[in-house]
Amino acid sequence: MAEIQLPYLLFVGDEHQESNAKTAFGVRQWRPEACTGQWNLPGGTVDTGLPKLTPAEAVARGARSLLIGVAPVGGQIAQHWIPAICEALEAGLDIVSGMHTRLGSVEVIRDTAARCGRALHDVRHGMRQFPVASGVPRAGKRLLTVGTDCALGKKYTALALTRAFQAEGLAATFRATGQTGIMISGAGVAIDAVVADFVAGAAEWLSPANEPQHWDLIEGQGSILHPGYAAVSLGLLHGSQPDAMVLCHDPRRTHIDGYEGFAIPPLDEVMHLHLLLARRTNPAARFVGIALNTSKLEPRAAEALLATTTERHSLPAFDPLRSQLKPVVQRALAL
Amino acid sequence: MAEIQLPYLLFVGDEHQESNAKTAFGVRQWRPEACTGQWNLPGGTVDTGLPKLTPAEAVARGARSLLIGVAPVGGQIAQHWIPAICEALEAGLDIVSGMHTRLGSVEVIRDTAARCGRALHDVRHGMRQFPVASGVPRAGKRLLTVGTDCALGKKYTALALTRAFQAEGLAATFRATGQTGIMISGAGVAIDAVVADFVAGAAEWLSPANEPQHWDLIEGQGSILHPGYAAVSLGLLHGSQPDAMVLCHDPRRTHIDGYEGFAIPPLDEVMHLHLLLARRTNPAARFVGIALNTSKLEPRAAEALLATTTERHSLPAFDPLRSQLKPVVQRALAL
Repeated sequence: MAEIQLPYLLFVGDEHQESNAKTAFGVRQWRPEACTGQWNLPGGTVDTGLPKLTPAEAVARGARSLLIGVAPVGGQIAQHWIPAICEALEAGLDIVSGMHTRLGSVEVIRDTAARCGRALHDVRHGMRQFPVASGVPRAGKRLLTVGTDCALGKKYTALALTRAFQAEGLAATFRATGQTGIMISGAGVAIDAVVADFVAGAAEWLSPANEPQHWDLIEGQGSILHPGYAAVSLGLLHGSQPDAMVLCHDPRRTHIDGYEGFAIPPLDEVMHLHLLLARRTNPAARFVGIALNTSKLEPRAAEALLATTTERHSLPAFDPLRSQLKPVVQRALAL
Repeated sequence: MAEIQLPYLLFVGDEHQESNAKTAFGVRQWRPEACTGQWNLPGGTVDTGLPKLTPAEAVARGARSLLIGVAPVGGQIAQHWIPAICEALEAGLDIVSGMHTRLGSVEVIRDTAARCGRALHDVRHGMRQFPVASGVPRAGKRLLTVGTDCALGKKYTALALTRAFQAEGLAATFRATGQTGIMISGAGVAIDAVVADFVAGAAEWLSPANEPQHWDLIEGQGSILHPGYAAVSLGLLHGSQPDAMVLCHDPRRTHIDGYEGFAIPPLDEVMHLHLLLARRTNPAARFVGIALNTSKLEPRAAEALLATTTERHSLPAFDPLRSQLKPVVQRALAL
């Protein structure tokens, strides 16, 4: 795909519920230096704490792209957003969207972008073709976050670990596999939108050969345990050829979300299954930590759980947003 | 997808090498009753043993579709085939193709089909959208052929077993997951062309709820062991929710074809891994046989190998094209 041009102006439309602007808040949290400001339409009240700017003002401060930071109902482009998107194109911004509807499918957006020479990025959709995976080992180190289910912290864990590696002075790159991750990093592959034959190949492309001591921190997707998404997870696992894995889990979740009959097995069984599969493309694959989402637990209960988990599995257990991550980095470096 | 209309006129073009007409020979072998005749262009010598007919003659004998039974170099439509394809449309035939190039991308073919009210089937490509898999168990019995690699008999095994089940008076349906299988059965899903998120959902759709004693014999794809295609195989495995599996193997193959570093593990390890994964969506999943492709072995060596394999794994080992399949059917019925 064409590289996304940073920094962003965050478009939050006429939204007034923060929960509908998760994308804007996620990018604001993880890439504050990539956010010039936010743009509310009349009636909108969402506040990310950034300066409120029009497209023209944002361009004057260096913004390169308008990021659609709100999720419209049904993933479609709201009619009253179309003039706003065109105004941003006219002002000189590319558009970055994670909506189901492709930007270019709206004629006036497509025509305005062409006339102004601006790029339209639909990060939810496949933006290029990939080869079938080669399985050939490549230089550099890779850590993949894997999970017991969807939506329990694989992206945040990979982002937090990227910071932790960099804080130790190590060369480390976050590799995004979903739309919010792509928006945060400005690059990546929406891996679940890739045709099944090419998922592992896309994962190989995403974390290419690198310096021997460089670490890619790869955002996991779905779960090997998920009856719907395991194919995505396995292709990503095989193509990533991880040296290190971190298992992400929400301790309050006993079953796959929305799939009653599908209990989450004990964590040691889950890790055993991942190792069996991962070692097909990297015989040296190991777990280096367990990330627990303890956001809904009292601090003392969270600490106790992390201590028990660390002891039971002889691996550093941590909360990516609460804990020191140095033990995980050290564990990975010791491999 | 729209159902393919049978029987076929097999188009073998100006081909004179049998090996380039595998599709025609496969359909001829497995669905002889669905083949009205073959059509050679001037200079073509491939002979499937069927009557040589023009499209008009074939229509007069009941043919409904022209099947492109030869694989052109690069999967593209040869220029000099285009008038022939249009002649078939004019004569009243639909067109069924497994080529990379979509039939409808050739303007004169698209226009002629529209004018004549004929259907164009591109079986290599996804022809419909699928939901994410539900994981919900459904009535009816399912057998999935799985393999240690690609291209070693998973389709033939499923076809041969379908015949064997039917020979015992059982209700049984072959479910195609690849283009040749789809051409043979007239329906199915090219599972490797499905977007990764929906592979398991497509597999659920392919073998829907049925009578409790009805068997679906599902054509496997790729291999869980394959560094490029495992995602496809796992999605198909999860969505198929097989009660029974048959492991297909080529005893002369020690490594994944074209992937030097990827040895094929011992068969009991391969079956263990499949059971671990299959039991996520069907806890009762079992192996009921091992299909060995012994076509390159002397009959006596083949017999000895089948006997040894049967004994070692306590499962009927068989060659789908040489052996009695009744023991496998009985094993499945005994589950």
